Amino acid sequence: MTIDEIPGLRTEINRRSALPLYMQMKQALMEQIESGSWKPGERIPGDVELCKLFGVSRTVVRQALKDMAYEGLVMREKGRGTFVAEPKISSKSLVHSLAGFYEDMVEHGLEPVADVLEQAMIPATAKIADRLDIEVMTPVIKLVRLRYVQEEPIVLVTSYLPYDICRALVNADLTHQSLYAFLETKCGLQVASGYRKIDAVVANEYEAKLLRIEVGAPLLRLDSVSYLKDGSPLEYFHGLFRSDRAYFEVEIDRIREARGESSV
Amino acid sequence: MTIDEIPGLRTEINRRSALPLYMQMKQALMEQIESGSWKPGERIPGDVELCKLFGVSRTVVRQALKDMAYEGLVMREKGRGTFVAEPKISSKSLVHSLAGFYEDMVEHGLEPVADVLEQAMIPATAKIADRLDIEVMTPVIKLVRLRYVQEEPIVLVTSYLPYDICRALVNADLTHQSLYAFLETKCGLQVASGYRKIDAVVANEYEAKLLRIEVGAPLLRLDSVSYLKDGSPLEYFHGLFRSDRAYFEVEIDRIREARGESSV
Repeated sequence: MTIDEIPGLRTEINRRSALPLYMQMKQALMEQIESGSWKPGERIPGDVELCKLFGVSRTVVRQALKDMAYEGLVMREKGRGTFVAEPKISSKSLVHSLAGFYEDMVEHGLEPVADVLEQAMIPATAKIADRLDIEVMTPVIKLVRLRYVQEEPIVLVTSYLPYDICRALVNADLTHQSLYAFLETKCGLQVASGYRKIDAVVANEYEAKLLRIEVGAPLLRLDSVSYLKDGSPLEYFHGLFRSDRAYFEVEIDRIREARGESSV
Repeated sequence: MTIDEIPGLRTEINRRSALPLYMQMKQALMEQIESGSWKPGERIPGDVELCKLFGVSRTVVRQALKDMAYEGLVMREKGRGTFVAEPKISSKSLVHSLAGFYEDMVEHGLEPVADVLEQAMIPATAKIADRLDIEVMTPVIKLVRLRYVQEEPIVLVTSYLPYDICRALVNADLTHQSLYAFLETKCGLQVASGYRKIDAVVANEYEAKLLRIEVGAPLLRLDSVSYLKDGSPLEYFHGLFRSDRAYFEVEIDRIREARGESSV
């Protein structure tokens, strides 16, 4: 296969550019995906072919494709090749409304399931106590859930709730059920407002193993407190989302903002 | 110094736990910071002392502290030791209102400055054209700015704006000035709505060098399009924020949401 057999692919590398070779290559490959020339699921040229096409070393090709895999643009499958990834899951409501991950996925027509890794009563540490506005050592329910969408682990969530507020939660089956739905139907508790803090971290060995990604892969971290109508904290949770599979979306409108409704 | 000379520090490691040693150690150190026992700027025990205190290897100590440095909890300074980091910069308006980074920092009482790394007219690629709703190859102004707060590089932003909409921008001095302020005063353009996409990536060599962080350190990526009142795109930008120095904040209120004002 010669260069001009891949329509639209810019294979020229500028060796005098300040931009590293693998970044130039990555940009060219990304354009193919973004322009729709290469579709999700499609196999892209192999490493050896890319070396030839761009006139670069194997190291350069690997770096470009590793970056792209981290960003969820391609999937590298050993022995099979590199494929254009399916679009990521957008989580709009998580940072834009009070709906939980479950409701969010259902709205996308997806059915989330969870592996409950831990469900126990523990004494609140300083951090948990601070977030839930309770005394250190107060009993809280700790929930650790690995949540899957289409059989792929997407997010590892750890939640803490005051034990006294909903004792039944210790024994609730949350495999196929939303935590918020359980709190509402079984304990009459409804989330009224929420605070979200978003940053980025890299996966450690433990997280990588659970989420089936590489150690060092980027994760979106959501640190959040949900409140009841009277302002008392109901849940403190932090979620680690695979950034190769999920992103957050926000829409902002100046008109609404001017009415003072955007900064509650 | 013996163990009981560090008040509150839990140095017991459970070797049978599924949780790796460095994570247990990290939790104990984090509690010291979160509880306020160790204050920003304070020097924490050195690596050798931590090895003794926790009865773990140097590798374990390094892994715990590296993780904490990535999360912006501590700063490791060669030859000087490990210090509790200053609190991160919260960027509320960036994901919650239409104010730009400049306005956001000014509101925090900080004065941002920028190194303009690139300011040129280029032809739109497929991705830029798609975001700005223009034809491929249409002239756009590309702006690459490395933005500092308190002499520390915080975010690397790349913006694209249709050239025809504000030609004066090619020569604007944006070192000490907000892009939005320039657009409004010089070209009469005001942002009316915006779309933000948030995910996490890891720094490549180029980004790491500019942002003065390690290759592989986590970054928050903001991918955004800002629109004018008539709905036409004004700016497409993507910002890479050092996750050890910045985070995004969102507050959500169900009552507002119920009025349909949260999902414009």
